[in-house]
Amino acid sequence: MIVASHRGPERFQREADGTFTRQRGAGGVVSALQPLLAGGGAAWIAAAMGDGDRAAVAAGAARSDDFDLHLLSLDPDAHRLHYDLISNSLLWFLHHGLFDLPRRPVFDDRFEEAWSAFRSVNQAFADEIVSAARDGDPVLVQDYHLALVPAMVRAQRPDVSLVYFQHTPHCGPNSMGVLPTTAATELLASMRSCPTGFHSQRWVRAYEACCEIVAGMAPGPAFAAPLGIDPEALDASASGPEASRELALLDDLVDGRRVILRVDRIEPSKNIVRGFLAYDLFLERNPQWRERVVFVALLYASRENLAEYQAYRAEVEHAAERVNNRWATAGWTPIALDPEDVYPRSVAGMCRYDVLLVNPLKDGLNLVAKEGPYLNERDGVLALSTEAGAFDELGDAALAVHPFDIAQTASVFESALAMDSDERKARAARLRELTASRTSRHWLDELVAHARAEAG
Amino acid sequence: MIVASHRGPERFQREADGTFTRQRGAGGVVSALQPLLAGGGAAWIAAAMGDGDRAAVAAGAARSDDFDLHLLSLDPDAHRLHYDLISNSLLWFLHHGLFDLPRRPVFDDRFEEAWSAFRSVNQAFADEIVSAARDGDPVLVQDYHLALVPAMVRAQRPDVSLVYFQHTPHCGPNSMGVLPTTAATELLASMRSCPTGFHSQRWVRAYEACCEIVAGMAPGPAFAAPLGIDPEALDASASGPEASRELALLDDLVDGRRVILRVDRIEPSKNIVRGFLAYDLFLERNPQWRERVVFVALLYASRENLAEYQAYRAEVEHAAERVNNRWATAGWTPIALDPEDVYPRSVAGMCRYDVLLVNPLKDGLNLVAKEGPYLNERDGVLALSTEAGAFDELGDAALAVHPFDIAQTASVFESALAMDSDERKARAARLRELTASRTSRHWLDELVAHARAEAG
Repeated sequence: MIVASHRGPERFQREADGTFTRQRGAGGVVSALQPLLAGGGAAWIAAAMGDGDRAAVAAGAARSDDFDLHLLSLDPDAHRLHYDLISNSLLWFLHHGLFDLPRRPVFDDRFEEAWSAFRSVNQAFADEIVSAARDGDPVLVQDYHLALVPAMVRAQRPDVSLVYFQHTPHCGPNSMGVLPTTAATELLASMRSCPTGFHSQRWVRAYEACCEIVAGMAPGPAFAAPLGIDPEALDASASGPEASRELALLDDLVDGRRVILRVDRIEPSKNIVRGFLAYDLFLERNPQWRERVVFVALLYASRENLAEYQAYRAEVEHAAERVNNRWATAGWTPIALDPEDVYPRSVAGMCRYDVLLVNPLKDGLNLVAKEGPYLNERDGVLALSTEAGAFDELGDAALAVHPFDIAQTASVFESALAMDSDERKARAARLRELTASRTSRHWLDELVAHARAEAG
Repeated sequence: MIVASHRGPERFQREADGTFTRQRGAGGVVSALQPLLAGGGAAWIAAAMGDGDRAAVAAGAARSDDFDLHLLSLDPDAHRLHYDLISNSLLWFLHHGLFDLPRRPVFDDRFEEAWSAFRSVNQAFADEIVSAARDGDPVLVQDYHLALVPAMVRAQRPDVSLVYFQHTPHCGPNSMGVLPTTAATELLASMRSCPTGFHSQRWVRAYEACCEIVAGMAPGPAFAAPLGIDPEALDASASGPEASRELALLDDLVDGRRVILRVDRIEPSKNIVRGFLAYDLFLERNPQWRERVVFVALLYASRENLAEYQAYRAEVEHAAERVNNRWATAGWTPIALDPEDVYPRSVAGMCRYDVLLVNPLKDGLNLVAKEGPYLNERDGVLALSTEAGAFDELGDAALAVHPFDIAQTASVFESALAMDSDERKARAARLRELTASRTSRHWLDELVAHARAEAG
């Protein structure tokens, strides 16, 4: 099997003595795939992500015990344009509907250069796939950073068993028209050259509508295959000593109060500010709940080189501050905002919550919405946005959140905290059943099957 | 015939002696319908729009020589919520895709109150229609301010020949989901209760997709009927003394240079800032055109009680100022920004332009794109956004503008100014033919036919 993803399963760092140490790579795609594939003989093609990776490649030390690792040392300027401008500032914003359209995006002469760089990075991945692929190997191309790879591979090797999976939502035809026409057509033409998967049937439909309406092409084969959790890894984390220590610290912090939890990157699509506004409204409407609940917000920064993320982080912090300034008492801080990225703390939070808030504007899947209910030990309630891909599977057992409607979200807090224990138990049991029954292994098997079916 | 529109065909002002004077009402719907219906015995139902109108209603003086005028004196608080919050700040932004979604809209407890007010204003229109309608009268309900009227009329009078026409675009299902579910469903359920028209087949398709995907309902009958120009009124304006005077002033201003023109409300959907950025890029790329062209921007303020419009106006002015600061010479100002709303000046500009820029992000139709080519006397080139409804009819004879792509827009300026006279003549002739052959009368006749067909 060959996996291609923008980030690799391991990152390298050069130590003072000239040797290299390794750590697990970051990001959702790596977290999902790494444990499934480690030690199974898979080839993994990824970009060298920084000076450490690049030095390891140069020294011939970019090797892994678990994979046949192919780290690509890309031209740093081209890689920056590929990643910051096209992937993160354009395609991510497009598919999540984050643009303030009267103002952004503006396509100028720089765009042509950035798009060429995006193309050249995709070509480097495609070339590596072509040279690594043996007959019958399924090739799994992961996510929008590599959306042009399928057509590039097909152009050289029509025989390869290829599948492309996009972890984000896919925008509809109105939004797709925001892209310059040639770029939109190039993306869609590439995606239709092999089976294309998403976490939700909604993104499949949107992709198909884009092919038909924006590009005037019949869509290629497309399918929905939601990612599942990794039960063994979660069980191991939850029963480990670090999670226990974090759970004790959390218990001290909340001091017997009810816990509303969120665990998110600081990211505009996660809708963190409206979550705090809804909590503010909830406290205003429900004096009886003041001092009896804590909103634990485990938030960690990302993409801080982009102005939009710096601005959003400030807005998140200001919103939390306003709520705390308005309602805090001597012994009670309504929102505990924790900006550190400590995984055992997230695990502890997921074990402990009474209400888990997952209210994105739009989200390809949202794995926290699955991991939380799987781990939770208190029959906690899942408050889940209808716009998260995971709502397709979990919606019936969750309380539905309308992400733009803070009055409705405040009512969901009320319902969740007032819910009788029979209903909580029944919903929590159903959520555990749903999240435990479809694992990341199922997802991977489906991707491979789609790749193989098409080649056959 | 009965027409219902938010604004009426005439506005009233109380003079010092206690009598009332009248002037023609503002806005595109009134401009289109007033000359077609004046003196024909039509009833026109509209909201009293200010103190003058309200005083005229109270004094029994809200009468017209041309219409059976029914001005509704609405509760001022409810009317403000209906107009500023729901119509202008919510539905307009929704259908034109103007929201910065990580930040706006936020639906809080105030929204319920505003939506109730929107409903009550629509109910007042519906009640007036019901009491005014005689058997067989076609009833023409105009625009999104009155989107709930069809269902309300139908509930009381299933027999009425009703048609609803929306002059804006209609958003797709992804955007429609931004509205609270009950509001989205209520709008769509109302619109499907009678034939619903738009200026473009694209908005018809988007509306139908919203019915199916957001509301899970089969759409009602829907049709595209683009508004046409009013040739007699345009001819009269263009040959009048005021337009001649304005044309002379314009000739002085541009001093023999080529003219790029735009005529727009200052409105985020009109994409005025990117138009200036594209012109800046055009001047940067084309030194030979510096001092030989003037961008005449006839822009008039609107909705200045809304913060978003104040902010956008400042951005427009700053963008023009930056271009002028960068390129102006002693004898040449690259952009002549005129913020006065003088209709004969617009007519003069439309007669005189070499290039007419109409580059909205999204526009239901855009009548300037039709009026300009009809009036123009210099074989001017139409540079038209693919996202304007008028592009359906005029796209082949225009140069297509991608509204987000300023590099492409700058190239359109280059092509338009460099176009040889044969091609200019041929395109201009085709545009005149297209714009002259479908008038506002055709549009009105189609609306009436749709209303009658449904009742029959």
